[in-house]
Amino acid sequence: MTETNTQILLRSRPVGEPTAEDFSIVSSAVPVAGEGEVLLRTRYLSLDPYMRGRMSDAPSYAAPTALGDVLPGATVAEVVESRDPSREVGDVVLAYGGWQAFSVAPAKQTRRLDPDAAPVSTALGVLGMPGFTAYAGLTQIGRPKPGETVVVAAATGPVGATVGQIAKVLGCRAVGIAGGPEKVAHLTELGFDAAIDHRAPDFKEQLKSAVPDGIDIYFENVGGHVWDAVLPRLNKFARVPVCGLVAHYNATAAPEGPNRAPALMSHILTKSLLIRGFIQDEFARDHQREFLTEATGWIAEGRLRYREDITEGLENAPEVFNRMLRGQNFGKTVIKVS
Amino acid sequence: MTETNTQILLRSRPVGEPTAEDFSIVSSAVPVAGEGEVLLRTRYLSLDPYMRGRMSDAPSYAAPTALGDVLPGATVAEVVESRDPSREVGDVVLAYGGWQAFSVAPAKQTRRLDPDAAPVSTALGVLGMPGFTAYAGLTQIGRPKPGETVVVAAATGPVGATVGQIAKVLGCRAVGIAGGPEKVAHLTELGFDAAIDHRAPDFKEQLKSAVPDGIDIYFENVGGHVWDAVLPRLNKFARVPVCGLVAHYNATAAPEGPNRAPALMSHILTKSLLIRGFIQDEFARDHQREFLTEATGWIAEGRLRYREDITEGLENAPEVFNRMLRGQNFGKTVIKVS
Repeated sequence: MTETNTQILLRSRPVGEPTAEDFSIVSSAVPVAGEGEVLLRTRYLSLDPYMRGRMSDAPSYAAPTALGDVLPGATVAEVVESRDPSREVGDVVLAYGGWQAFSVAPAKQTRRLDPDAAPVSTALGVLGMPGFTAYAGLTQIGRPKPGETVVVAAATGPVGATVGQIAKVLGCRAVGIAGGPEKVAHLTELGFDAAIDHRAPDFKEQLKSAVPDGIDIYFENVGGHVWDAVLPRLNKFARVPVCGLVAHYNATAAPEGPNRAPALMSHILTKSLLIRGFIQDEFARDHQREFLTEATGWIAEGRLRYREDITEGLENAPEVFNRMLRGQNFGKTVIKVS
Repeated sequence: MTETNTQILLRSRPVGEPTAEDFSIVSSAVPVAGEGEVLLRTRYLSLDPYMRGRMSDAPSYAAPTALGDVLPGATVAEVVESRDPSREVGDVVLAYGGWQAFSVAPAKQTRRLDPDAAPVSTALGVLGMPGFTAYAGLTQIGRPKPGETVVVAAATGPVGATVGQIAKVLGCRAVGIAGGPEKVAHLTELGFDAAIDHRAPDFKEQLKSAVPDGIDIYFENVGGHVWDAVLPRLNKFARVPVCGLVAHYNATAAPEGPNRAPALMSHILTKSLLIRGFIQDEFARDHQREFLTEATGWIAEGRLRYREDITEGLENAPEVFNRMLRGQNFGKTVIKVS
């Protein structure tokens, strides 16, 4: 093989929003597949908010990426060499190849995709980790009952859009929060019962009007001023699956006072709230298969729609990643690598 | 009947710690039992932290006491007149008579107590609402597994002491937090594996040493600086039943910054924490009977001990109530009324 690999490495730990200097883009030799492994050419790289956590060495649910290492990420890739009988050259698989053009993986850590069943990029979005995050958090923590009100922010993102549409499938009222009129209009197209712009000066009042019976489930993936507005509207026994806090990821210090933590705890107490952080992994064994079956069916029926925000060129990943954290993406953020 | 009733009424809504001026002590006619009702002479009045919430008109899980009304509270009382065939004069019952010497109640809203089974005052503590709060929160929200570490604050109070002792019965390591050396010593007598004084200057370090494997369940009934110290020690998938926040009840404004709410949410997310507010009522139908059976057995076996802090004289209730909120009680706070 005469090609070279392109890799994006973590050069330094970002303080606040990552800058170009925090990354290095390098050329290196294409890696070699060992026994039982496959050599993969990346087609699509997924960019997801959780990656900001890996760039930092603050304690979190996963170890940080070491300085000088390739940044991690889910990929859809083509098998270009196979040293395992279960995979053939030309197979398209879901892998965890990271921010690079070629990668090597044990064959059994890849999942073969059927390009006829759905566009393969959906394995990174609506049928992948973001879709399953939405499904698991909503059904296993939120436990929606028909007629209840479900609110989700970042609602045009791959998690939020899926939460809202599954809530509708399950008979709930779905209210989406997004930034800007174009996104808000898209939520209505997706069938949300109400859509609100969190940048509107009267955001709090709009939210109040949109949830006349209060909020039974708030699917949290934003934090910040959206959470502050939602908290007083939560009903007794409301459930809050906490899947992300993208508004905080670039924060460098605790925000100014007053200290709202005691008020948050008081709401939890006086309204018998359930607040539960989660990563989708913990539900994968018991629910991933049922999710894939259900979601594939809902997509076929037109009840679950998705939108992708695809940029060509691996070298654009750092800038596109920042745009996503600022909420400037519109749908699932993906880099088309080859 | 020539006796008169003595009642303690809410005169004004306290700002911060209640003062004598917030209450009026009045004499009035002994009430008259109607058909199906009983006239009760209060023997014991329970004082509990939740009552501070009823004195305020801030939104909470129960309506506030109206100004001029008798303050509410559980009572152990003797039937002095019965207009219902299910109760006889001389019966001792659990009722909700409030801060007064006589009350009237529908007979079916009282529960007859067996003075031979346990001292009747325990119906207000270890075998009553506080004991059931401990049992329901620990078993239904905390869901302890043998070998896990359970931490509870206000650990000599009727809820905390019961939480720790049930945790031991269920095979957990129990760590109690209390204020002052006398209370800390008592926790060791009760069989807690470790006991810590939250007033000690090295409280945080003591807590860290006491939980070498981290904390799996924190039973929250205090808030404030104890919660701040516990939060970083919680393990992945830790559960936090939130039953009370006595450190905040007299607060008149949000504390100074920085704003720790975002950090709290980040802990919830990165450690997949479960935080759940509750009032024992929601578990009563399914678990109250099993609790009474279990707890009565544990008391008989000496595995569940309790301590009462009894003051004579209804007129002392306001001052005793304040002492309790300041943590100056030692065991279940009860007023002996007659």
